[in-house]
Amino acid sequence: MSTSDPSSTLAATLVVLDLLGIFVFAISGALVAVRKDLDVFGVIVLAGVTGLGGGFLRDVLIGAVPPAALADWRYLLVPLAAGLVTFVHHPALGRMERTVTVFDAFGLSLFCVAGALKALDYGLGPLPAALLGMATGVGGGMVRDVLAGRVPVVFRGELYAIPALAGGAVAVVGVRADLPTVAVSVAGAAVCLAWRLLAVWRGWQAPLPRGSASV
Amino acid sequence: MSTSDPSSTLAATLVVLDLLGIFVFAISGALVAVRKDLDVFGVIVLAGVTGLGGGFLRDVLIGAVPPAALADWRYLLVPLAAGLVTFVHHPALGRMERTVTVFDAFGLSLFCVAGALKALDYGLGPLPAALLGMATGVGGGMVRDVLAGRVPVVFRGELYAIPALAGGAVAVVGVRADLPTVAVSVAGAAVCLAWRLLAVWRGWQAPLPRGSASV
Amino acid sequence: MSTSDPSSTLAATLVVLDLLGIFVFAISGALVAVRKDLDVFGVIVLAGVTGLGGGFLRDVLIGAVPPAALADWRYLLVPLAAGLVTFVHHPALGRMERTVTVFDAFGLSLFCVAGALKALDYGLGPLPAALLGMATGVGGGMVRDVLAGRVPVVFRGELYAIPALAGGAVAVVGVRADLPTVAVSVAGAAVCLAWRLLAVWRGWQAPLPRGSASV
Repeated sequence: MSTSDPSSTLAATLVVLDLLGIFVFAISGALVAVRKDLDVFGVIVLAGVTGLGGGFLRDVLIGAVPPAALADWRYLLVPLAAGLVTFVHHPALGRMERTVTVFDAFGLSLFCVAGALKALDYGLGPLPAALLGMATGVGGGMVRDVLAGRVPVVFRGELYAIPALAGGAVAVVGVRADLPTVAVSVAGAAVCLAWRLLAVWRGWQAPLPRGSASV
Repeated sequence: MSTSDPSSTLAATLVVLDLLGIFVFAISGALVAVRKDLDVFGVIVLAGVTGLGGGFLRDVLIGAVPPAALADWRYLLVPLAAGLVTFVHHPALGRMERTVTVFDAFGLSLFCVAGALKALDYGLGPLPAALLGMATGVGGGMVRDVLAGRVPVVFRGELYAIPALAGGAVAVVGVRADLPTVAVSVAGAAVCLAWRLLAVWRGWQAPLPRGSASV
Repeated sequence: MSTSDPSSTLAATLVVLDLLGIFVFAISGALVAVRKDLDVFGVIVLAGVTGLGGGFLRDVLIGAVPPAALADWRYLLVPLAAGLVTFVHHPALGRMERTVTVFDAFGLSLFCVAGALKALDYGLGPLPAALLGMATGVGGGMVRDVLAGRVPVVFRGELYAIPALAGGAVAVVGVRADLPTVAVSVAGAAVCLAWRLLAVWRGWQAPLPRGSASV
């Protein structure tokens, strides 16, 4: 996260949460790679792209280069570890799909808020900042799917991007209303998390076009 | 467009043309998404990527970040509107394919000239500027096709990129010859538009390799 | 290469090697395009993307924009020439696949070292610099494969990226140990080249996940 906080305990907590989000995203990327029969390099690249790709996309677009993850070796080792763990233990991880989905929702909630706040920090307006928050959350998974040779699952009716946009928007509106960053971050992440988990548990889907073969 | 003009009427005209080009490109992206049975989020993302992707690609490569479209909400709302309109009215828009193709040729003509001039403004040489003009015109559609899971149609014999390169090249040569920007822009766009529309109407194709299965 | 050398003969040699690497990569991209029945524009774009894409990716991530290749027309004409030569003479080039593979290994060796040294020059740490060296070597081929509608071959068991990472790592460690740049570059490139050629000749493969259908 790009926000500076008075409490260094809080700052450390945020780094841990950020790394945890990257770890979970990276596992989801590595599982896709394993299912596509990719080799160990493909597994690690998809882990890295899924965990870090959304942040890279955001940082390149707002001019924050080199991206933070390239200046901090912890951000590089976490997806590497996730890729290797998945490469070896994928049968067990594949059976924990429900757990991975829940952790993934946590990752999404953190990323959409962190992405939106960083975009505001770099001077972007509220609408682009909320959109970049969403892109931070969903961008890594989109690149993962393109590299794995499939249409991004986030386009396939899964209610995933809209909660991320909502979380980013809540954070942006809160910051513009001069509310404390911590409260705003928690509120944005909570909105995204609750909406996403409800969508998973209730099977909510994003609308498909009329006449779609999938309807 | 990045060129500053004495007449504010002209500047306003250019913005309107630019937004119109983005709108038409965005409709083409949304139609591809609908045909691939993507959900409403996929439709809007493909609309946005097709309308804005070429400009984003150019801006990231020349260092003009954040891209202009992220600093102006009109550039974000236009593809959103195009995506929603297409999501709801795609059967009618699908029947207007010929009309969409003609408008798309206008968009291509505007984008290749605007992209080339912006690259010149950022200090690039004539050859890269003309190439970036072409990339501005065709880049969004290429990303659209990759995200939709198909090989870019611009590689499939459609005569599309060469007119865009020609339009950008005319604009670059004109600026280097110190001709007035307006005249140069109109000339470049006219070359691209005429060539593209002739290609559509006459069925001109780009050459395929010898022995190609498609020949 | 971004490193400045006292001897202008050496500098000229490096430019020639760099252009040769781009040429060979571009031919590999153009051959993929021909096999996918793409038109002449697709052949040239895949040539350009394969030859220059890895460097573009690196330059955008480290903030070295516009990328060097956009400021030097030779870097644009080389892939254009490679694309056109392949478009016309692809049956002959297709029969020279073994030769192309050997030259491609030379290109990979140059790119991983040049990419890692440029990243160091831009202030990145050793781990990200070595990774960006690898990305410079393999990134162009990955974008080529995505545009051609296939999963990157570098994920499919081919031992290709690991030698590039090793070459970049050797160069980075050497520079950090204050060894002369020339010696370090030669050592890094030699490690990558030897490993890659041995892998080709002995049929070494990267490990696949347990239970993979390809095992």
